[in-house]
Amino acid sequence: MTNHSPDDVTPERQPPAVAVVDATTPGNVGTIARAMKNFGFEELLLVDPPELDPEGDAYGFAGHAREDILPNATELSFDQLVEGYHTVGCTAVTNEDDRSHTRFPYSTPAELTSRLKTVAGPTAIVFGRERVGLTNAELARIDEICSIPASPDYPVLNLGQAATVTLYELRSLAIGEESQLPDIERVRAPEATIDRLYDQWEALLTEINHPAEKEDKTMRMLRRVYGRADLTEREATTLLGLLRRATERPADR
Amino acid sequence: MTNHSPDDVTPERQPPAVAVVDATTPGNVGTIARAMKNFGFEELLLVDPPELDPEGDAYGFAGHAREDILPNATELSFDQLVEGYHTVGCTAVTNEDDRSHTRFPYSTPAELTSRLKTVAGPTAIVFGRERVGLTNAELARIDEICSIPASPDYPVLNLGQAATVTLYELRSLAIGEESQLPDIERVRAPEATIDRLYDQWEALLTEINHPAEKEDKTMRMLRRVYGRADLTEREATTLLGLLRRATERPADR
Repeated sequence: MTNHSPDDVTPERQPPAVAVVDATTPGNVGTIARAMKNFGFEELLLVDPPELDPEGDAYGFAGHAREDILPNATELSFDQLVEGYHTVGCTAVTNEDDRSHTRFPYSTPAELTSRLKTVAGPTAIVFGRERVGLTNAELARIDEICSIPASPDYPVLNLGQAATVTLYELRSLAIGEESQLPDIERVRAPEATIDRLYDQWEALLTEINHPAEKEDKTMRMLRRVYGRADLTEREATTLLGLLRRATERPADR
Repeated sequence: MTNHSPDDVTPERQPPAVAVVDATTPGNVGTIARAMKNFGFEELLLVDPPELDPEGDAYGFAGHAREDILPNATELSFDQLVEGYHTVGCTAVTNEDDRSHTRFPYSTPAELTSRLKTVAGPTAIVFGRERVGLTNAELARIDEICSIPASPDYPVLNLGQAATVTLYELRSLAIGEESQLPDIERVRAPEATIDRLYDQWEALLTEINHPAEKEDKTMRMLRRVYGRADLTEREATTLLGLLRRATERPADR
């Protein structure tokens, strides 16, 4: 390694902070805190927040985030927010083209994720108040715009739902490829096991007097059905056992 | 067209229905209805729902869905649900492998979307009650499992938030590629305009006595900055005008 002073060290990428501007409903702040915890985000910034009573809706809606994200939230001014962070403002309503830059250009949350993955530096995803969102005056001071693609008939999401969708899409910035789900979803059965399944089907077709001229077509259909299903070894051997018993059952029942 | 009887017509793919089983909080039903409307879904199925008072939280949280999705919701039994639809049960808690099939295999909402795009036939996305979700007995009767990837530390989403994320991911089954956002986000400025911008920068560098030996490196940096930004024509011509005025301003200021 070269002899860098501490200031030269490439900063590690931190998950973006989440900022909520002038929300009036404590429940929405709690919902956002819960979504943060569900998707691995930690830093909650509040501009002009409502009172967050530990016995009230904010803590009630926060799930386990009531233990850390909500009590550790930072209250700050909008000036401090835009001065301290690269800010991404979320809005359902964009401009159509670059005649106005207030709400244009914008990224979708998926596009934002791809780009932010490549950058280190303090970033805040900013959500506005219920009903009217972020004002044009606020958006004008914000670095870039993000908008969730939704139905043209009703694209305006509730504040808590908008934050939940956005943080879900951005989750790889916080938890990478990790999740509660197993790494490999399934391992397909060995081909030898699958072949025995088809052999057993052929034996069963003979046993039930399936017309010989139809056998090829039927076997092709069975291959397509099992082929799409990506059978696991346990599934394949269970099916094999069932078919074997069906083939060998006493003929005089 | 060939002369099909009505029964032979390939059924058009309908967006999946959304089913909520035994929810106790009217607000969650309203939140789910709103997410449905935001992402283009229409058919809401309710098994053992709470009372949905038009003056209460369900309608309060539903946004514009209070006008159609919520009043048009169908109440039915769990038996009718599993008999009438290909059912997809959503759960945060999966099994690890195929020793139990109750919660395994599963798909993520993104994987589910890819597959359901290729199939016609009545399908319902099923969400369970608050706190415990769908029971094992219910999941055993459901056709397949879906699970949202989330933080291993706290993967359990609130009911309304889980439905919002799932319907967001499945939105292409309902609204296709449509959204409220413009089709093309931006058109990049013509290369000739961009070239004029670099010519103007070269003129400005000369004017401000930028060292000749640094000019190539500086121009490369400028190309990288503007190159990443995909300038629109309006942005490029505005910048060009600003740079021209900077270059040509009276030297004796």
